[in-house]
Amino acid sequence: MTDPASDDDAVAPRRGGYRKGAERRAQILDEMIRMVAEQGVDASSLRSVADALGITHAALRHYFPSRDDLLLAVYREHEVREQGAPERMKSAIGDMRESAARNRAVPGLVQLYTTLSADAVQEGHPTTRDFMRERFTRLRADLAGLIRADQAAGRIRDDLDAEDLASLSIAASDGLQVQWLLDPEAVDGERVLRLLERIVPAGDADRTDGASA
Amino acid sequence: MTDPASDDDAVAPRRGGYRKGAERRAQILDEMIRMVAEQGVDASSLRSVADALGITHAALRHYFPSRDDLLLAVYREHEVREQGAPERMKSAIGDMRESAARNRAVPGLVQLYTTLSADAVQEGHPTTRDFMRERFTRLRADLAGLIRADQAAGRIRDDLDAEDLASLSIAASDGLQVQWLLDPEAVDGERVLRLLERIVPAGDADRTDGASA
Repeated sequence: MTDPASDDDAVAPRRGGYRKGAERRAQILDEMIRMVAEQGVDASSLRSVADALGITHAALRHYFPSRDDLLLAVYREHEVREQGAPERMKSAIGDMRESAARNRAVPGLVQLYTTLSADAVQEGHPTTRDFMRERFTRLRADLAGLIRADQAAGRIRDDLDAEDLASLSIAASDGLQVQWLLDPEAVDGERVLRLLERIVPAGDADRTDGASA
Repeated sequence: MTDPASDDDAVAPRRGGYRKGAERRAQILDEMIRMVAEQGVDASSLRSVADALGITHAALRHYFPSRDDLLLAVYREHEVREQGAPERMKSAIGDMRESAARNRAVPGLVQLYTTLSADAVQEGHPTTRDFMRERFTRLRADLAGLIRADQAAGRIRDDLDAEDLASLSIAASDGLQVQWLLDPEAVDGERVLRLLERIVPAGDADRTDGASA
């Protein structure tokens, strides 16, 4: 969805330095994704990242003027890589469930997402707010499209508003990540999302097999 | 659930000063709830709160040693007041929906909740993490109890795991608050939670009236 090249343009130092700048930026993001995955978001102050990378604070700020810019770039890079995952957006709620399963492997990225959500709803983080609002808009539209296709094919009951069911699925997935991260023994996000999948189908076909699941 | 008096004990300056200390603490929380409701969480650094209250930073720290302590106290006070609301915990998902409707009136408190969630899943906020984990545990148990009662009465289909449905409802409610706060025109949290209520009942009684709802 996002073209990484256009971002690089915005931060490229000058004509001619473009390629080197883009490589450097990619290096920083690689390192950041590793750091966030291993140590969580708190390790990602601009200063500690610069230290870890062995570059100056000023050099880092050249590519990422603020901590918000850096966190967003890390998340976007993660999203771009995630979209390479083979099952991306083939079924409506199943997709959310698979995405939750993958995120489970990298709690640091769930922390990053939660931080971006919290920042987005506060004052003082306009870039994060715009990014998250656009992300939700796009995700709701994509998911609603899949839901409508499932409704047309008789796989999801057609008296449910597709946009509302999309909002519900995204919200459930987001909220479950927090509950799971705080209490992995008590909350199994995938199983709970499977419950949501089980209650939306048209007809009663799967209604009786619940006990055997 | 929380007895405010026991908290006051912990921060009361000394024997004899207890009553005055408790009053002072209550005054600070009153003011904070007002500030958070009006201006959001970002206005709640210890220093700006002390300035707004016309007390010294040291005096404020006497009652609330850290920003985490202050934010948690504000949220708990809000919860205590909220529990006075007449409809509290009478029906399973309906309750979440009514709570969402009330929160809608005070975006600052939704911001506060989102901040606590984000802090809780990061390193470095052990008190917030413990509070939020316990809150989810308690809320899941309360809601699962209501769901089991609804299942016994034939109001919710009985092939759904009550704990999982409780997790799902809480997660949906939490996630919807963020989507709604970012895009109130696009997302109506109450309507979406009503969709969840509509798909869990036993039998098909309400399945045909969807269009007229």
